[in-house]
Parts: sequence; C-alpha cells; structure tokens
Amino acid sequence: MPQTIPLAQHLFKRLRQLSCHSIHGVPGDFFLRALDRIRPSGLNWIGNANELCAGYAADGYARAATQLRRHRSAPSPLVGALMTTYGVGELSAINAVAGSHSEHVPVVHLVGTPSRKAMREPNARLPVHHTLGDGRAEVYAEMAKHVICAQAYLQRMANATEAAEAYDGVLEQAVRASLPVYVSLGSDMVELRVPEDLLKKPLKLEPPENEKMAEERAVHQILEMLQKSQAPLLIADGMSYPFDFQSEINELVSLTNIPTMSFTSGKGLVDESSPSWSPALPNTTDYSREADLVMMFGPLLTRWTTIPNTGNTILFDQESVELFGIVTELARSKAVLRALIDKLKEVKFGQRADVGETNFAQTPLGKAVPSASDSITQDSLWPTLSSFLKPEDTLLLANGTPLIGGRSLQLQPDSQVIASPIWNAIGSMLPGAQGIAAAKRDHGLPGRTILLEGDGSFQVTCQAVSDIMRYKLDVTIFIANNAGYTYERWLNGMDAEYNDVPSWRYVEAARFFGAKDNDPSYPILAKRVETWGQLQDVLADEKAGDGKGLKIIDVIMDPKDVPEASKPGLSRASAALRSA
Amino acid sequence: MPQTIPLAQHLFKRLRQLSCHSIHGVPGDFFLRALDRIRPSGLNWIGNANELCAGYAADGYARAATQLRRHRSAPSPLVGALMTTYGVGELSAINAVAGSHSEHVPVVHLVGTPSRKAMREPNARLPVHHTLGDGRAEVYAEMAKHVICAQAYLQRMANATEAAEAYDGVLEQAVRASLPVYVSLGSDMVELRVPEDLLKKPLKLEPPENEKMAEERAVHQILEMLQKSQAPLLIADGMSYPFDFQSEINELVSLTNIPTMSFTSGKGLVDESSPSWSPALPNTTDYSREADLVMMFGPLLTRWTTIPNTGNTILFDQESVELFGIVTELARSKAVLRALIDKLKEVKFGQRADVGETNFAQTPLGKAVPSASDSITQDSLWPTLSSFLKPEDTLLLANGTPLIGGRSLQLQPDSQVIASPIWNAIGSMLPGAQGIAAAKRDHGLPGRTILLEGDGSFQVTCQAVSDIMRYKLDVTIFIANNAGYTYERWLNGMDAEYNDVPSWRYVEAARFFGAKDNDPSYPILAKRVETWGQLQDVLADEKAGDGKGLKIIDVIMDPKDVPEASKPGLSRASAALRSA
Repeated sequence: MPQTIPLAQHLFKRLRQLSCHSIHGVPGDFFLRALDRIRPSGLNWIGNANELCAGYAADGYARAATQLRRHRSAPSPLVGALMTTYGVGELSAINAVAGSHSEHVPVVHLVGTPSRKAMREPNARLPVHHTLGDGRAEVYAEMAKHVICAQAYLQRMANATEAAEAYDGVLEQAVRASLPVYVSLGSDMVELRVPEDLLKKPLKLEPPENEKMAEERAVHQILEMLQKSQAPLLIADGMSYPFDFQSEINELVSLTNIPTMSFTSGKGLVDESSPSWSPALPNTTDYSREADLVMMFGPLLTRWTTIPNTGNTILFDQESVELFGIVTELARSKAVLRALIDKLKEVKFGQRADVGETNFAQTPLGKAVPSASDSITQDSLWPTLSSFLKPEDTLLLANGTPLIGGRSLQLQPDSQVIASPIWNAIGSMLPGAQGIAAAKRDHGLPGRTILLEGDGSFQVTCQAVSDIMRYKLDVTIFIANNAGYTYERWLNGMDAEYNDVPSWRYVEAARFFGAKDNDPSYPILAKRVETWGQLQDVLADEKAGDGKGLKIIDVIMDPKDVPEASKPGLSRASAALRSA
Repeated sequence: MPQTIPLAQHLFKRLRQLSCHSIHGVPGDFFLRALDRIRPSGLNWIGNANELCAGYAADGYARAATQLRRHRSAPSPLVGALMTTYGVGELSAINAVAGSHSEHVPVVHLVGTPSRKAMREPNARLPVHHTLGDGRAEVYAEMAKHVICAQAYLQRMANATEAAEAYDGVLEQAVRASLPVYVSLGSDMVELRVPEDLLKKPLKLEPPENEKMAEERAVHQILEMLQKSQAPLLIADGMSYPFDFQSEINELVSLTNIPTMSFTSGKGLVDESSPSWSPALPNTTDYSREADLVMMFGPLLTRWTTIPNTGNTILFDQESVELFGIVTELARSKAVLRALIDKLKEVKFGQRADVGETNFAQTPLGKAVPSASDSITQDSLWPTLSSFLKPEDTLLLANGTPLIGGRSLQLQPDSQVIASPIWNAIGSMLPGAQGIAAAKRDHGLPGRTILLEGDGSFQVTCQAVSDIMRYKLDVTIFIANNAGYTYERWLNGMDAEYNDVPSWRYVEAARFFGAKDNDPSYPILAKRVETWGQLQDVLADEKAGDGKGLKIIDVIMDPKDVPEASKPGLSRASAALRSA
C-alpha cells in the first residue's frame, strides 16, 4: 500500500516547494478544517484583518522573489498564497488578485467552498449562505476567470488524486506565466487521501526552450544594432522584476557601458552606483530624447508614460522580443538575453556617454538647504530620505506623491523598489509591506522593509498595521501626511472637499491596534514631524533606522505640495481627463 | 431651443427622485469631474475611506426604505448609490454589491471609466492605468454582470440623450426588482448636454398589474386554507423588508390573530407588542412544529434553517406565491396580500392560540440575575439590551454572536432589524450603520442607529468609524469583544490561533481616527465594560442612550461563550462541515 496524506496537505506542501512558507487570509467556515493542515505541512497561517489586506500581502510576499533569487544559489521560484472563503471572502480579495494579474505577480488563490454535494445540488429555496441565493453555485469562479491565468476547480475532479494533479498543473502555470491562479476546494475534500509520492514528482516550472533559429536571429540582429548605434539607451522597467531579467540587465550594463535609466517601477533593478546609471527619467534628457536605439526590458508602461520617440526600439517582454515593431514570440526572452550576453563578451564597447543634466538629482536641496524650522516640502523630503537608505532595503512606494517623489531616492546596492504604476490602487502597499516583511523573515533575507505611504492610502487598509504587529513583523513606514488625495487635487478639484481625508492620529496607530507597552521583543517607534529639523532628528536616530519592529513617521506636508518636476506631467494628466 | 443640463446632472437628479440624497464612494481620477456636479444636483457626496465600506454604506442607506415608507404619505422608493473608479475601485466594492444582490437591496453602482476613446481603442503596449494591461477594457463590466440585475454601459450609447435614457431604464429595473444595477460613465461624458425635460418624464417604478384571474384564484385558495386550518402559523422573514410586505403582514396579524414568529432577519417586521407575536424561533416550539398551515412572507432562509415541516406551506416571494409546492408567477405578490386583506375583513377569526414556551424569552436572567461583579455572558448581554431599546430604533446585527444573540432582544414599536443571514459577510454592518445614519439624517427620520458588532467584524471595516465621524453621523455601537471569531470556534478549532483576533483598544478608536477633544457639535462616548455592574451603569446612563454622536461600548466577553440556546444549531453546522 502506498503511503497517503490528506489532500490539503498535498496542496500546502506543494506551496512550500515553491518557497511559499506563509499563507495569508481570513478564516472562513468552509475551510476551517483545512487550516488545521497548514502547520503540519510546514507552513504558517497569517490571519489578516480582512481579505483585501490578505490579497495585497500575498502579492507583496511573492514580490520578494527578487531578493530570494539573489540570496539563493539554486534558481528559486516564489509564489504568494491567499486563502479565503467562498463568495464574501474571495470577492473581498478580488481587487488584489486582479492587481497581481496586471503586474505579473504569481499568487495562488485558494478558495474554500461548500461541500461537493452542496455545490452540485444548489437549492435556491434553502440556499447555502455566502451564495447569491439563486442557485448559481459557481458564479464566483466565473468572475475570477477574468483576472487569473488558470483555474483548478477541484470539486469537479473525479477523485482526490486527479484533484491533486489538476492543482499541480495550475501551480506550474502560475510560476511559468508569473500570474495568479485560482483553486477551489470543497469543505468535504480536506481529508481525502492522496498518495504521498505525488509530491516527489517535480513540478514543470521551466518554460520550454526557445526555437534555436529564432533565438539566434534575434541575438544577431540586436548585436548588429548595438554595434551600429551612436547613442544607445537602456531602460530597465518594472516588469523586469517578475520576468527575472535583473541579473542579465546588470551584466549588459557593465559589459556595454550604455547609459541606463528607468521609470519609477524599474528603480532598483540597476545598481545605482554603476557609472552607466542615470537617475533621469527616460523622457527628460536631451540624450534620451535623441537616442538612436532604445533597448527596454520588462515594460510596465501606461498611457501617460512618454517613452523616447526613436524609431529604433527593442522591447524585451516575458515571452517575446520586439525589434523595430516586429514581434518575435519566444518561449523565454530571458534566454535571448543570456545568449546576447555571451556574444557581447567578445565585443568591445566604449566609455559611457554623457547623458546631461537630470531633473531628479537632488537639485532642490542643492539650491537651498532648508533651516530647522522650515516645513517639509515634497522637494525636500524625498531626496533627503536617500541618506536613510541602506543596502538590501525593500522600498514600497504608495500611489500618489510617494510614487512620484520616490524616484528621487538614491538607492544603495541590492535594493528593491516596489511601485504599481498600472494597477495603481491606493492602499495596496501597506499590506504589501506586511507580505514583504513576512517573506524576508520566512527566508532569512536581510534588509529593511520601508514603506513610503500616503495618508489617503493608509486609511484604505489601516488594519494592516494590526496584522504587522500581530506577527511581529519589521516594517518602517513614512506617511506623507498631506490631509488628502494631493495627486488628485492636481487633476481636478484643488480645493474640493472630496479630495480631503480626515486627519488621523497616525502616531497612535500602534496603541489603538493593541500594542503592548514596552515589549522588548517588538520595539515600536512613532514620531510626528512637522519641520525640517524634526525630520533630520528622526533620520539621524539610530533606533529609527534599525528597521526593527514597527516605525511610523508621520510627516506633515502641505495639502497642495507636489514635487516641482512632476507638475508638467500632472498638467498633462489633468488635461487628458478633460478630453476624449 | 430646449434647456439642457450636463449628463452627470441628469444622473444625479434622477437619484434624488429616488430619495437618494447621498452618494457614497471614494474619489478616483476618472470621475473627479463628475463629483463637481453632485452638489449642484442637490445631493451630498460621502467620501468613505475605502470602496468596500462605501458599498456597504450604500447598501445600508437603501435599507432605510422601511422607515422612510412609514414616515411618508406617498409611496416612496429609496435606492442607495455608490460611485467608484474603474477597475481598482469597482472591484474593491464588488463584494458589497454582490451582497446587495443576495439580499435584494437596490443600489446603483456608478463607475467612472476612462474616456470613450480610451475604452474603444485599448492599447496593450501603453495601457491605461487601472486596467489589466492587456487591452481588455470592458472586463470589469463583464465581472459585474454576475451580481447585478441590469447594466447601462453609457460609453456605448450613440449620444448623451440615449445614455440618459439607458440610465433611466436601469434605474427602473433597480427599483422594480429591488436589486443592484451597474452604470459606467466615460470621463469625457460628464459635461455632455441632455435636455432638462428628460427629468420630467416619470420613471416607471411600478410593476405591471397581476393577471386578475391568477390573483383571484390565489386569494381564494389561501382564504380557504386559512379557514380550514386548526393550527396556522405566520412567519415574517427578512425579504419582507425589501419586498415591502411589512404593513400587509401587520394587518394580516391583527385581522386573523394567527400566531406569528420570525427568524432573526425578520425581526422588527411585526409589532412585538401584538398579542399574536411570539419571540420563539419558528422551529423550536411544539405549536410551530405541529402547525397544519404555515404562511411565510419574504423567505430569507439558508440551508441551515430548519423550517416547520408541514406539507401545507404558503410562501410569498417577490413575484410569486407558492401554494403546496405549486408556484404561481405574478407581477407583484404584494397585491395578492392586499386583496387577501380586503377579503379577510369580511371573515371572523378566533383568539390567539397558545404557542407554548419559547427558548428565547429572557430565561437566563429570569433564572439568576447576575451580581455587579459578574462577568458578562452572551446569555445575559442580549436580553439585557432590550431595556436600552426605544421605538424607531434601527438595529444592525453583525454576523457571528450578535446575529445569534440579537434575536433575544425585545423590540419597541417601529423598530427595524438588519441582519444578513445569506450574504453573511463579516464587516458589513459597521459601514452599513453609517449608511443608515446618513439616510436617517437626509430624510429627517427619527430613532437611533444601533450596531451590535463583533470584534472580528469591526476589524474588517474599522475605517468606517472615521467615515461616521467625518460626517458627524449618529451611531451607537456595542462591540461583543470576545477576542476572536467565536462563532467559528464552535464550528472548528475551539482553541486554534486562527480563530483569535488581536485585542484592539476600541475605546480609543475615536481618538485615533481624529476626534476633536470636546466638540459640542458631535459628542463622543466610549466605555469599556467588563462586569455586569459596569454594563448596567452604561445602560442607565442617559448620555449613552440619547443616540447622539458616536458611542462605542466595548463589552468584554469570554472567547468561547455563546448563547446556550444556539449550541444545538452550532453543533449541527459543525457536523455539516464535516460531511459531504
């Protein structure tokens, strides 16, 4: 007789094989029994205050892959996992799952449903709770289909082994596509037995090899273009994180000395101490505007992004390379990059070109250092935070002014920046920071988790502070507290009440959420800073910078203040709202 | 030339015609300009901290219809309105909209989308933010279709007048079906002009007349059954609120003297001072178990509800009457009830039957009154709160122990109870209370808004306290603080950590969320009570009972304590989870 284990244990142990050691969620009756199987499978359960927070946290957890890869010798996948109950739970989280889809984050969404019988024989007269009351048992799975890459509806499988195999199949898809997947499990299926040996069958996580001819042709063409180009430009953009292009990009930069920039979501990909790195936005310098070749990795652009207007663009997407508008579909673009690097090692490139002045170097401070009693402006805050940064920091930029201002940070080596220019949901980054911190702890990864937050964002998902404290996670939060949706003020309604948010006492957050007084195992630091001098004091405070426990720095700012350099872009965006 | 107005103004003024004076939501770039048209249309904007709260608040607002009808001479529709941005906003609220669908609450969900051009010509290379980044512009509308009764996709209309007419059409459906609808508006459409006269065209809110023969046949049969029955029972259930059966039920009760009961969601429908009213659950007395005829109004049952097992059941649904298992489809069941009442006026009925002992009368207190230093138990708390109640109270019962315990309350006349046994989402009732309080204020309705909350529920949507304070709404909150999901403990994992929630300092909520000190325009009272004596003191405090401002009473209870009478049901539910 083969050894067997409960089906739930198979599901959880597979997650652990994908480096997921913590499952985020909110308990719900339909999967309470599955929760009993998490710890025996070697994982942790992280109970969030609500499902949206859990979804964002699972997304954050998966984004720690960047750091995990750097610290592991073997290639290392990493997925996030979210577990919610049927209907009310899964729909509360669906916005986070959709966000994972839009930005290519592999999250496994497990949904605990009523029993197989209840799902097969819905009864509109005596409906199961959490249904719409009309007998449409599978309606939520239908809704989820739009925002995931694959679904395993385990209730429909003939037996437990088939269910386990269907599950394995969607895990493979999640990792290969770097996208969320949806798995639903009947409440009666938790303890069904499956052969333990199934877990020994390796998951097929690698995409197939590229068609050799196509790969070689692409490499050849790119090489030719690079050699011909007089003014090339590399742009490392945000999707390079999930597509795992980072090490290849850095090798390319150091082999070629080509000037390299990034939009905000790509910050951290390239070592900022490299002589080829320029902090300028790719659309703001004469050099970049006149580049005769742009090679862009992992584009995470939006309609409002202005990209250099060269006819010669090479785009590296996940499974395609675009050369001059012609797209070559491939199994893995990363392999093209690797082959290109091998070729480049035989070629000599010149010195770095001068890319000219940038508009994001710390000019405001260069011009006039504020005095201690001055209030804190957007133009003084963000560059100043650079002095606070350390190697291995993971920095999350909330949408709004932190996303704008965060790009003036000068990063230390091996930092990661998490920004969300496409999904752009306010509130996602606070629970995201919780997820990052959990992944760092689970895997013993170094470096702090630092969130640059907005007050409007904080209010969306404030209960994540409770989740952070409950699990004693290390998170440092700066809140740009400008009493409202400042980014939106610049789009419409500069003085409108609808752009205000109430003034919370952020420094009392830890206390409200139940912090113990003077708990030596979990230090808490909370400061409200209104002046430049107070900010400097905090930044110089060793305890503020040690990354341990929870820090909340509430930075008071003017409601209408935005970085000077962002004003033209905001004006364009505002005008775009008024036109068709 | 006919007078014209902006399209957005047409949309908002129509809402006002449906008694919706406040729109709930979170501002988003794609509809900022529409927000400028709310006040000129005579409505208020209520900016919630997040979209899920806004959705629940809009649902609560619409549920105030019960009270509005009682205080208006003319028939009065009432819809709730929710406005969110495309993608991130609408998906964050979709769980609340689905809940409105499951419990028949008419909510108009307005979604501000990118411009018509951007929607028509999506660009996967340079996608609009808040999209999935792959060019599927209408994907969210597809997802919404599953949880609404009608959709007006205004971008697709040939011109503004057609858009206004399509909108009017879905409003009619929302009111007639008492269900949510979805409306999306391009950012470029706000100021398109439509004839002002369109607003004069009355909306068709009444369903068609019943087919006369069918109605008469149903009335005749019911009458015959009522006259033959020796032991009839009326059950007023929760859907009678949205289906507007309340006045007919009460007339029937007083005309016939038939014993009347309700499940929890139907509490408040029947005047509890009526001699025919019994607080017993319909499945717990000998009388109800042996009834030879059960007439049930507005069933809002779930699989775990045991209904009296008589073969003779008459069910009044929204658009059907079921007699002995045979369903007659009708345009409006309410008209059948009215016709039945007219007939019944000519018939004599006897005295009220004795329905025997109930298990929910205040037996625990009858047996032993606790002493002042005793801790507060579930069996002592809920019946005690009856002494706190006043006429016209609106009582919201959060899911978990408040939903169980709330049914032992003895209500004063003209109370409304809001319970959610089908959707059963934790966290829905705190923002729901905000919506109720807003509707009461908008329409000058009397009575307090009282929320019986759980700690787990509070943590899901705690930012609603900020929303309540921001708009100075009057809400009284009792938190059954038992350090976890007590209801779930009884289903699985009595001592499991996953059923714990962190201990927040609930009495400091108002302070954390920014309350001003001693604001005479908005009194705040916050008390933590751990003993029976402390609870009595609060209940006797006039300030705690005046309903003004915000009150938070944090009631400390044992984590495993549930009402004694609920234990058999919890055991059944627990067993159901273990079986197929």
